[in-house]
Amino acid sequence: VKILLANPNTTEAITQHMARTARAIASLGTEIVTATAAFGAPVIATRAQMAVAEHASLDMISRHAPGTDAVIIGASLDSGLAAAREALSIPVIGITQAALHTACLLGGRFGVICTNPTGAAITRDMIEAYGLLPRLAGLAWLDVAAADILADPEGSAVLLADQAGALIARDLASSIVLIGAVMAGMPTRMQSHLPVPVLEGVSCAAPLAEALVRLRATA
Amino acid sequence: VKILLANPNTTEAITQHMARTARAIASLGTEIVTATAAFGAPVIATRAQMAVAEHASLDMISRHAPGTDAVIIGASLDSGLAAAREALSIPVIGITQAALHTACLLGGRFGVICTNPTGAAITRDMIEAYGLLPRLAGLAWLDVAAADILADPEGSAVLLADQAGALIARDLASSIVLIGAVMAGMPTRMQSHLPVPVLEGVSCAAPLAEALVRLRATA
Amino acid sequence: VKILLANPNTTEAITQHMARTARAIASLGTEIVTATAAFGAPVIATRAQMAVAEHASLDMISRHAPGTDAVIIGASLDSGLAAAREALSIPVIGITQAALHTACLLGGRFGVICTNPTGAAITRDMIEAYGLLPRLAGLAWLDVAAADILADPEGSAVLLADQAGALIARDLASSIVLIGAVMAGMPTRMQSHLPVPVLEGVSCAAPLAEALVRLRATA
Amino acid sequence: VKILLANPNTTEAITQHMARTARAIASLGTEIVTATAAFGAPVIATRAQMAVAEHASLDMISRHAPGTDAVIIGASLDSGLAAAREALSIPVIGITQAALHTACLLGGRFGVICTNPTGAAITRDMIEAYGLLPRLAGLAWLDVAAADILADPEGSAVLLADQAGALIARDLASSIVLIGAVMAGMPTRMQSHLPVPVLEGVSCAAPLAEALVRLRATA
Amino acid sequence: VKILLANPNTTEAITQHMARTARAIASLGTEIVTATAAFGAPVIATRAQMAVAEHASLDMISRHAPGTDAVIIGASLDSGLAAAREALSIPVIGITQAALHTACLLGGRFGVICTNPTGAAITRDMIEAYGLLPRLAGLAWLDVAAADILADPEGSAVLLADQAGALIARDLASSIVLIGAVMAGMPTRMQSHLPVPVLEGVSCAAPLAEALVRLRATA
Amino acid sequence: VKILLANPNTTEAITQHMARTARAIASLGTEIVTATAAFGAPVIATRAQMAVAEHASLDMISRHAPGTDAVIIGASLDSGLAAAREALSIPVIGITQAALHTACLLGGRFGVICTNPTGAAITRDMIEAYGLLPRLAGLAWLDVAAADILADPEGSAVLLADQAGALIARDLASSIVLIGAVMAGMPTRMQSHLPVPVLEGVSCAAPLAEALVRLRATA
Repeated sequence: VKILLANPNTTEAITQHMARTARAIASLGTEIVTATAAFGAPVIATRAQMAVAEHASLDMISRHAPGTDAVIIGASLDSGLAAAREALSIPVIGITQAALHTACLLGGRFGVICTNPTGAAITRDMIEAYGLLPRLAGLAWLDVAAADILADPEGSAVLLADQAGALIARDLASSIVLIGAVMAGMPTRMQSHLPVPVLEGVSCAAPLAEALVRLRATA
Repeated sequence: VKILLANPNTTEAITQHMARTARAIASLGTEIVTATAAFGAPVIATRAQMAVAEHASLDMISRHAPGTDAVIIGASLDSGLAAAREALSIPVIGITQAALHTACLLGGRFGVICTNPTGAAITRDMIEAYGLLPRLAGLAWLDVAAADILADPEGSAVLLADQAGALIARDLASSIVLIGAVMAGMPTRMQSHLPVPVLEGVSCAAPLAEALVRLRATA
Repeated sequence: VKILLANPNTTEAITQHMARTARAIASLGTEIVTATAAFGAPVIATRAQMAVAEHASLDMISRHAPGTDAVIIGASLDSGLAAAREALSIPVIGITQAALHTACLLGGRFGVICTNPTGAAITRDMIEAYGLLPRLAGLAWLDVAAADILADPEGSAVLLADQAGALIARDLASSIVLIGAVMAGMPTRMQSHLPVPVLEGVSCAAPLAEALVRLRATA
Repeated sequence: VKILLANPNTTEAITQHMARTARAIASLGTEIVTATAAFGAPVIATRAQMAVAEHASLDMISRHAPGTDAVIIGASLDSGLAAAREALSIPVIGITQAALHTACLLGGRFGVICTNPTGAAITRDMIEAYGLLPRLAGLAWLDVAAADILADPEGSAVLLADQAGALIARDLASSIVLIGAVMAGMPTRMQSHLPVPVLEGVSCAAPLAEALVRLRATA
Repeated sequence: VKILLANPNTTEAITQHMARTARAIASLGTEIVTATAAFGAPVIATRAQMAVAEHASLDMISRHAPGTDAVIIGASLDSGLAAAREALSIPVIGITQAALHTACLLGGRFGVICTNPTGAAITRDMIEAYGLLPRLAGLAWLDVAAADILADPEGSAVLLADQAGALIARDLASSIVLIGAVMAGMPTRMQSHLPVPVLEGVSCAAPLAEALVRLRATA
Repeated sequence: VKILLANPNTTEAITQHMARTARAIASLGTEIVTATAAFGAPVIATRAQMAVAEHASLDMISRHAPGTDAVIIGASLDSGLAAAREALSIPVIGITQAALHTACLLGGRFGVICTNPTGAAITRDMIEAYGLLPRLAGLAWLDVAAADILADPEGSAVLLADQAGALIARDLASSIVLIGAVMAGMPTRMQSHLPVPVLEGVSCAAPLAEALVRLRATA
């Protein structure tokens, strides 16, 4: 099985950061190949950058998907997801959608943590568009840039765990979903401090992509 | 007042078709200038074309909006709407969103008619994303291409009136919203046969854009 | 264009307060005429007063609307709105509904501020009845009477700006809607202190009423 | 226990029609006294008549409620319900709300049948305002006036049973709610032909009013 | 009228605690007979115990319902409610559902208080399953076991009143619903301190069960 | 990896029917072990049988799960799912929930087909409880018993394909979900006749269970 991990951000370092997480969780025999957007923002963070990324993601996937069995879109905004699904005959999955549905499969309502308020407002819209608003326990956010998470993962884990604790105590969250490509690898830093599962999208998307490949559910 | 009517489709004829309707309804003293997308689909009809149009629309608007007082996005999919709003400090309105909110301001629930099933599925998602699903009485569609509407407006009006009648009788629609740039001018062909108001986006968007300019509601 | 600004409250001073705001924003050539309810409460504030105002508003509008092109109902509760729409063949718009839909046309979710908790509970019901609950970011309130706002607009603006700030920071509101006839003129006192648009109903309703007159969307 | 059955319609015959049903189901020791609106429509059927009835109902109840233990509002539109509840310290219940909640207490989703399309559109709004839309299986209607039901109850029962059958088969309704003061007595004409409970508001409201009196749930 | 009060918990003392409340509010001539589950948890508090209680409740009711006119299921989780309704031809009502619908009949939105967070998460799911989420103003909880309420009713009333006050002030609750079999009798300890009605399930269920018996609404 | 396929029905033949499908799709190296409920209905079809199955399923899983890595609950009603999740520290997944979330991951809205109307009403409740009602395009049903599907799979496939076609054409379903343990193996009989993916629960649950095992998302 060959899975394309396609990063709609133009930052190759984030692509490789995600690829490490994806390869660590993928089955033996699954190959993760990568692509990084040819144009657009280094880290997509605004609605204007999202608009460009819709195009850049579709363009990138159209070029790199041939020969692979499934595609993971590696940006918090799942940029180009609906377009790529329509254009391809193989499974395409976004990391945020993957994490949200995995949370549903663990039961209860999920709490969501974003890097900053702009991202939180966009993520709320995404959850609504995915039809999952009834499963949202609560939404929290830090006030940092994505790069800050990469630069200080340990310190970020402390801040994230604080927000997670509040989502569990105040909003009765049964699981925590961390939003963003830079959250890859973060759950393992936090899980031991928290009484509910902590999820992020890349590690959810890789096994789900394998599952969809196995299912061969295409018309 | 100077309003940019920006068409994310690349077909200049549709731009001019919409411009005629916009100019007919705009106030004396309002100038309608136009732009047509530099790249993308002649008539956006798929989710893949939508992805490209997000970028093309933002690109077009960024170049043509300076010097204008408001922007109307003239495609059924309101391509680039959130991005352009974020990027500009003047009002930006999409023709579908304009028609849906106008229908709300007339009272009751609205029935919606699209040109084909793919458009209907996408339109339902848009209504949900705009938070207006509670106002939707029913959704209907023809099975034609956008070009067919332009080619045979009289015949299309008959087909649309049939669907409108069903939405009124079966779904208790209090108004009818026609979706698509090619519907500009269509309500006047149908209105006399129907007991509820018939709306399309361009003629709703032009007066609303003037209203938003007058309000000067910007932070 | 001649627009009737009809006040379901029986306080003529509030009618004139709203008329000043409406006239300031209306187009050249638009005449704002006024009417004040013949019976009912000086300032509608309870559900019992609302019940009387439904009747008083319809009665007032039936007598004063002939000869005008549109009606604005100038009370936070949009008293008599559905009834007047049904009874007349011209556009009828309530100030609260006007402000809420204008907020939608600016994008994102809106925060709402009421004068007191009773008004907040009623306003929440109204937002639900208008089908706009998915667009509500949060609801806040002061604990004052409507007359207190009129008596101390500067002090009220400070209190309102505090609540607005909380709605933006905590609930990610993209715009702020002030509820009540006495809020006419208030946004200009607050806007410079806030990073999102601040709206109230009268200044939204006047341009929207003009837009609906221009559209002539009647069956 | 003394219960006021208050009819916001001005037709005394309908008041007596409802009173017979209420007295037949009330407990021994419960006295049903009646009042009929002093002004307004003989049979409320439009939104304009509803606006007047809000006032007329509150006026009637304020005069006749003193000395009683509970109030039943006997019109399909529950006219004046929120206002009367606020104004009085005894339970106030509307016949439509009573029937809808009784249906909920029987389990499953309810199907609703109205006399005509206008009534159906208004009833849908009421169900939404009562927060019971998730419990609505389907909505159906005849195309008759309320007086037609009174004039030909046997023929009406046949038409209603046809609609009920469709709601059960197509919409999986677990119970049927008939909307309107004139439906009092109708369930007994239909029940033997249908596999799910058939309800109307007066016979639901009388026992519920007794229950609320017994509970003494007032602040 | 003979009503079975069936306790899906296996603690006979709780059965008798509820029976005292039910008998105090029931009409003269209504007999309350009791049953206690033959197997399962002393006090159902987890989802695993709920699963067993579904079976135990149906088993208990099937054996004890014959000869009675209605059944009240006396556990906060309404265990076995849908199953018993399907199996019997007499009304079956759960105490939580009874309290929630009574709150609706009093008007406005209800605030809900549970004994602990686990119960609160489960109760939220129940409210959603009953289709009443639109009526929920807010959800609060203590952090005690059910037995603690029985052991210290006075102290518990103080804690509950604090939470009720917050639900009224912060969430605009128009009534308060206490969740749990052990809350029987609690409203009378709290009501005088609170400006809105306080409800618990047993005292709501008994009069509602009588009402449903009187209605004889069965297919 | 060792996965327990636990059948809350007491019919061993259905267990083996599902096991064949699970083993056909599972990865090399995944062992599927089975269990069949010790008590309850041969084929769970009513709410009373569901109540017993909640207990029977939890009992079965508690005895057979030790030593396995994940559990699949093999009944359309996902009996005992929440209870087993709470009781165990390994992933537990129901076949209906698995199919619904897989449909979400393929994009768009799903159409659902049940064996009979009773199952359809129950399934609608389940979809609502899973928070997935916004993703439901439409619900259809045959009028057969589960055993009829097993007895005549070819004839059933024709009937199911008819319903699927209607869900696609009328309700714009982007995928079809077949509900029931007896649907295992059915998609391959239908897929070639339909333009959208056809799913059933067992073949979705096996790869998803493997994915959750790989993720190790437990607190």
